Amino acid sequence: MQETAQDPARQPAFVLVRPQMGENIGASARAMWNFGLERMRVVGPRDGWPNERAVALASGAGRLLDRAGLFGDVPGAIADCTYVYATTARERGMTKPVVTPERAMIEARDRIAAGGRVAILFGPERAGLENEDIARANAVVSVPVNPEFPSLNLAQCVLLCAYEWRRATEAAPQAVMAMARTEFATTAEIAALGDHFEERLEEAGFFFPEEKAEGMKRNLRNLWSRMPLTRADVQSFHGMMRQMVRWAGRRDPS
Amino acid sequence: MQETAQDPARQPAFVLVRPQMGENIGASARAMWNFGLERMRVVGPRDGWPNERAVALASGAGRLLDRAGLFGDVPGAIADCTYVYATTARERGMTKPVVTPERAMIEARDRIAAGGRVAILFGPERAGLENEDIARANAVVSVPVNPEFPSLNLAQCVLLCAYEWRRATEAAPQAVMAMARTEFATTAEIAALGDHFEERLEEAGFFFPEEKAEGMKRNLRNLWSRMPLTRADVQSFHGMMRQMVRWAGRRDPS
Repeated sequence: MQETAQDPARQPAFVLVRPQMGENIGASARAMWNFGLERMRVVGPRDGWPNERAVALASGAGRLLDRAGLFGDVPGAIADCTYVYATTARERGMTKPVVTPERAMIEARDRIAAGGRVAILFGPERAGLENEDIARANAVVSVPVNPEFPSLNLAQCVLLCAYEWRRATEAAPQAVMAMARTEFATTAEIAALGDHFEERLEEAGFFFPEEKAEGMKRNLRNLWSRMPLTRADVQSFHGMMRQMVRWAGRRDPS
Repeated sequence: MQETAQDPARQPAFVLVRPQMGENIGASARAMWNFGLERMRVVGPRDGWPNERAVALASGAGRLLDRAGLFGDVPGAIADCTYVYATTARERGMTKPVVTPERAMIEARDRIAAGGRVAILFGPERAGLENEDIARANAVVSVPVNPEFPSLNLAQCVLLCAYEWRRATEAAPQAVMAMARTEFATTAEIAALGDHFEERLEEAGFFFPEEKAEGMKRNLRNLWSRMPLTRADVQSFHGMMRQMVRWAGRRDPS
């Protein structure tokens, strides 16, 4: 993970247009802050502003609501922006670029890096954005949902866009194979483990019948080398084998 | 967009482990179906099953609840699976690969294309998955959230994974797994292998001193579940252990 806090001035503004339920405003604030986004704007909230239900639902993200800009209309909310995306659930038949959230957030990152100011419009719960809101946007963001069931709610749409913002701006390794400080075994250690097992299994009569012994040994070598064993794992396997031999009482390998 | 409906048999199972609120189960069903996923499994839901609140909240996705598998415990829910991911909010200090949702769903797609069966575990609302649930998984999925505010809820975590599944499966698979025809062992087979070793090692006095026995056993479980074992590998390990016991002459496990 890159840095904890981004400079909010270099983030897109998420603009909630005529939101209805305070709960959804609060949930949207949480969704944004989950991914480090801080700049919320609210246009004509149905139940006034500030909104108690929103504050209650935002919990740890309440700061976003305190600092949110309140606007009377969409043109006012996006007046300072150089590029605006409108989120829609379905095609509106407008002649405008339609992009995925991933693409939009990559573009937003690049536009902001070049000095631009970007806003994303999110429509009210039931109906979504009006055509005239969409007409004010430069491009449309559409989440590729199941066409049989396109039922994302406001906070979910905000969540996916915020998630994509973080993905676009953080050079996160996809797999933290690090497994935090794990020391993987060296090939020499794996070979020694293979030797140990082969020797003891040989004594125990495992490689039988004789004409199959070579193939069995090769398979076993192959098995060990295919496993992503840590040093601790190798020690565990040595320990198990030593204990079985000790138990057998045939030998004390100390 | 590829096709509308995927073959559900070729989708990962989303396993809700001990979910508490019916609302969240319903919202999770909606989140899955938004992205075309149908295979839900539920382990020990707090308020019984079926759950009225879940059905009410699922609305158009109610079908997923009707068809959801109900299980008493995690091993039962993943018994038929060959690869299991556990979602966690924070590092648990376990030696396991940690991947992003994107990476996990790309891997899941490729594993399923190669004949595997994949499950994703989601923990209960408050506490998340228990360490012993995580120990049964092959890898951990961690959403790269704002470290100052990692507050994703159950349905949001399901939503992000389902979204990444759709992203991963809309495009052509980027890589077909090298071990295409390999038959990986199921978690039930791995669990049986773990039981076999634990039993015999117990008899052999491996878990010593007693106050460390529990931790040693957990580490060993964790080791087995972390290895990409094939069915043939599992048979090899059973065979080695049987032979050591036979050699010890203490018992003939036939």
